[in-house]
Amino acid sequence: MSSSWLAFTIDRDLKTPVFEQICDALRNDIRSGAKPKGTKLPPTRSFAQELGVSRSTVVTAYEQLVAEGYIEGRQGAGYEVSVLDTPEIDPSPAPRGLNSLPPEDPPYGFLSGNPDMRLFPYRAWAKTVARVARRSPEDLLVSQSLQGYPALRTAIADHVREWRGVTAAPEQIFVTAGSIEGLELCLRTLSRAGDPIALENPGYLPMRRQVQAMGMRTVDMALDAQGACLPREDATFAVLTPSHQYPLGGTMSATRRQDFLRWASDTESWIVEDDYDSEFRFSGRPIPAMAGFDRLNRTIYVGSFSKVFSSGLRLGYVIPPLALRDKFAQTLRHFGSKASATPQPPLAEFMQSGEFYRHLRRVRRHYGRRRAFLLERLAQDFSDVGEVVDYQAGMQIVLHLKPDLDDRHVETEAARHGVTVQALSQYYAGTPKGNGLVLGYCGMDETETTDALSILRRVFDAARPKEKGRQSDPF
Amino acid sequence: MSSSWLAFTIDRDLKTPVFEQICDALRNDIRSGAKPKGTKLPPTRSFAQELGVSRSTVVTAYEQLVAEGYIEGRQGAGYEVSVLDTPEIDPSPAPRGLNSLPPEDPPYGFLSGNPDMRLFPYRAWAKTVARVARRSPEDLLVSQSLQGYPALRTAIADHVREWRGVTAAPEQIFVTAGSIEGLELCLRTLSRAGDPIALENPGYLPMRRQVQAMGMRTVDMALDAQGACLPREDATFAVLTPSHQYPLGGTMSATRRQDFLRWASDTESWIVEDDYDSEFRFSGRPIPAMAGFDRLNRTIYVGSFSKVFSSGLRLGYVIPPLALRDKFAQTLRHFGSKASATPQPPLAEFMQSGEFYRHLRRVRRHYGRRRAFLLERLAQDFSDVGEVVDYQAGMQIVLHLKPDLDDRHVETEAARHGVTVQALSQYYAGTPKGNGLVLGYCGMDETETTDALSILRRVFDAARPKEKGRQSDPF
Repeated sequence: MSSSWLAFTIDRDLKTPVFEQICDALRNDIRSGAKPKGTKLPPTRSFAQELGVSRSTVVTAYEQLVAEGYIEGRQGAGYEVSVLDTPEIDPSPAPRGLNSLPPEDPPYGFLSGNPDMRLFPYRAWAKTVARVARRSPEDLLVSQSLQGYPALRTAIADHVREWRGVTAAPEQIFVTAGSIEGLELCLRTLSRAGDPIALENPGYLPMRRQVQAMGMRTVDMALDAQGACLPREDATFAVLTPSHQYPLGGTMSATRRQDFLRWASDTESWIVEDDYDSEFRFSGRPIPAMAGFDRLNRTIYVGSFSKVFSSGLRLGYVIPPLALRDKFAQTLRHFGSKASATPQPPLAEFMQSGEFYRHLRRVRRHYGRRRAFLLERLAQDFSDVGEVVDYQAGMQIVLHLKPDLDDRHVETEAARHGVTVQALSQYYAGTPKGNGLVLGYCGMDETETTDALSILRRVFDAARPKEKGRQSDPF
Repeated sequence: MSSSWLAFTIDRDLKTPVFEQICDALRNDIRSGAKPKGTKLPPTRSFAQELGVSRSTVVTAYEQLVAEGYIEGRQGAGYEVSVLDTPEIDPSPAPRGLNSLPPEDPPYGFLSGNPDMRLFPYRAWAKTVARVARRSPEDLLVSQSLQGYPALRTAIADHVREWRGVTAAPEQIFVTAGSIEGLELCLRTLSRAGDPIALENPGYLPMRRQVQAMGMRTVDMALDAQGACLPREDATFAVLTPSHQYPLGGTMSATRRQDFLRWASDTESWIVEDDYDSEFRFSGRPIPAMAGFDRLNRTIYVGSFSKVFSSGLRLGYVIPPLALRDKFAQTLRHFGSKASATPQPPLAEFMQSGEFYRHLRRVRRHYGRRRAFLLERLAQDFSDVGEVVDYQAGMQIVLHLKPDLDDRHVETEAARHGVTVQALSQYYAGTPKGNGLVLGYCGMDETETTDALSILRRVFDAARPKEKGRQSDPF
C-alpha cells in the first residue's frame, strides 16, 4: 500500500474527531495536487491498522470525502482520487461541501442549550435503531398517527408524569419537530394573525421570531425576583419558562404561577409552558411543571428532546388540556406534521428500555461537574468583570458584566479569538437591556473550559487596556 | 400453550396487515373480558408457528398491544394481559390509543398523492438503516450542517440533474421537513407579512393555508389551456406546479413558462416551482423543470420525497438560485431547521446505491398500470356522470362531473360507504368552482379499485334516483 498517504499521525487529544483528522490530511494532500486524479487510496482495512483506528472510522472518512467529491468509490476496487468538478452554474470561487457555510462551531463554544454529543451512547442507540429497523421497518417510514408514534407518546406520558409531575394520556400528546413547531401548533390552533402574544423579556429568540413570523404582535413581560410579570396589556397567550427562566435562570414563584393561572382564566387566555431543560436540576427536588397543577386547564405544556437528548432528531411534544385535543388534531390535519416518523420508534424503545434515563443521569452528573467548575473559575478569576447568580439548574449561567464592559464587544472579540459566547443584551427586545454573557457549560469538558476561559480572560484584559499592570493587547 | 387464543385465522386476502389482524383478534378477546388481567399470552415463537406467520409479525402485534396498554411484557417471562387503566384526568369515554383519532383511512381511498407503501422495499431499507447505524451512528443524531446531510445533498444534486434537468451544487441545496417547510423557507427569506403571494386556483390546499398562516395575502391565478395565467395584480411570489398542475393535471406550455420568467424578472418577483410528483410520467420524456432553464435566476425549486418515496420521512428540499443561498442559510440560522437528521443518511445511501431508483421505477410501473385500469373503467362505466382528461402523468386524475351531480355530496356519500374521494370544488378559492372528483390511483391495486368503483357507482346511482331503470337506493 502507498504509505505516502500515511505521513500524518492521529492526535487523540485533539477535539477534532479522528475521522475528521483523517479527512483533513487526505483533503490537504488532494488539494495540494500531491495526489492527482486516479491515485488509489489505501484499502480501508490496512489503512486502519496502520493508523491504529477502527476500520469503520476510515470508512466514515472516505465516505465523507466521497460526499465532498474528492474521491470516488469503485465497486469492489477501493477508492481513488476524483476530479473536483466545479458545477457549471457556479461562477464564484466559493469552496464546496461542508465548509462552505460560515463555520457554525468555532473551537470553543459556551453555546447555551447544546448537549455534549461526545457523551452520547452511540453504540446503544445504533443497536436500538438496527433492532427496530429489522423488527418493524414500516414504522420508520409510515406515520401510524398524525399525533406521533403511539409507543413514543406512551413513553412521553410516563416521562412527564415521573419527571415533571404532569399527568397526561398518550392521546393528549402531540409529537412535533421540536419546541418551535410546538409553539406554532398552539398559536395556529388558538390565535390568529395580529393577536397579542406575551413573551418574556429577555427570552428565547427563536420563539420570538416564530411569533413575529406568524404575523402576531409581541407584548413584552418584564422579569422580577418572582419570575415573569403579568402582561401589562391584553394578550391571548403568555409564553413562559417557569421552571428555569431562559436565559437568566431562576424559577417562577408559586404565587406568581397562581397569578398567571388566574390571569389566564379571567381573561380566557392561554399559557404556553416552555419546559425546555428542566430535567437538569443539580440540587434539591425537581420543580414540578406548572401544567401539573393547573386545575383550570389553561396551560399547554411544550417539551423538547433537543436539549436533554439530541437536537438532530428534531423531536419535541405538545400537551394541551384534554378539552383542546380535537382542535389541535384538526390543526395537524390542516397543515400536516413536520415530525419525521424515522426517529420516533427508536426513541420510544430507548425510553422504555431505560437507556434514555441512564444517559440522562450520566450527562446530568457531567453537566453538574462542569457547572461547578465553571462557577468556581468565574468566582476566582473573573470577579473583576462581573458576577454570577447561581440557580442550580439548567444548561447555562449568566455572567452579568460591569457597565464599563460592553457584552456585544466581548462577544465579537471572543469570536475573533475562537470562543463563542452570547451577549445577554441580544436576548432583550427594546431597552433597557441587560449586559452580560450567557455561558452554556454543557458542551465543553473541564480542560476545554479552562482553555476557553484563558482566551476569554485575555479578551477582557484587552477590553480594559488601562487597568493597572495589564498589557494593552494581551494577544 | 393456550390454544384458546387461536380461535381465529389469518386472512391474507384482506387489506388489513397480518399483524393488525392478530392485534384485532387479541384486542377483542381482552376487551370482551374473555381474557382477564394476568392471562398469559402464547409465546411468540410457537404462536407464530401455529398461525403460519413470521415471529416478528407476532412480536410487532404484541408490541402494538403493549403500546395500547392491553398487555404487558415481563422480562424473560412473556406477555400477559394488563389492566386497562383509564387516565385519571380523562373523564370522557373516548377510546384510548391508536383508534382515538377519527379514522384517517376508510377501507378504500382514492387519496391523491399517497404512495402505496405496500410496494415499499422494507427489507432493503431496514438493511440500509441498520448499516448506517452501525457505521456512523452519530450521523443519525447530530446535524453536521443546518442545510442537511452532505451526502444527501450530493444525492439530491444528482437526482435533480438526471431526472429534472436542474443543475445545482450540493451547497445550494437545503434539506427541509417537506415541501411546506420549503415554501416557508422561501417566504421567510424573501417576503414579509402582508405581501401578496400568487397561488394557482385550484391548487394545493396546504400551500394556501401556509401562506395565509404566515399573514400574507393570496392572489389567485386562474388556469387556462396553457397552465396558470399571470397574476392580475402585483405579487412578490408566484407558486406554480408547471410540470403537472395540482390537482387538474396538465403541463404549463413553454410560452407561458417564458411569460412567467419574464414577469418575475420585470417585477423583481420570485417563482416557487413546486415539483411535487414529476418523477411519475407515463409516456414520452420527462418534462424538464422550469428551474432548469431559468437563466434569470428567479426560480426557486421545491422538491419532496413524500410522494415519490415516503411521507413518513418528512423530507423535502429547496434549491434557490446560488445568489440567494446565503440569505436562505441566514433564515435557517434564525429559525432553525425542522428536518430530522435521522432519515437523511439512510436516504442518501439508498439513493447512491441505486435502491431508490429501482423502487421508483417499480412503483412507476405499478402506478402506470393502475392508472390505465382506472381510466379504462371510468370510460366504460362512468361516462354518464362525467369525463376525464388524460395528461399521462402524476398520481391522480380528475373526473369532471356533470352539473346535476354535486361533488361535495358525492364525497360525503362515498365516505359514508367507506370510499374516500376528494371533491374538486374544495381545491378552489372563491367562485366559480370546478365540479368533479380528484381520484388518486396509486394507493389501491386493481382489485381494490374495482371494489371501490362498484361502491362509487352505487353512490352515483343513489344520487340520481330518477334515472331510468335504476333503484332509488342501491345500498
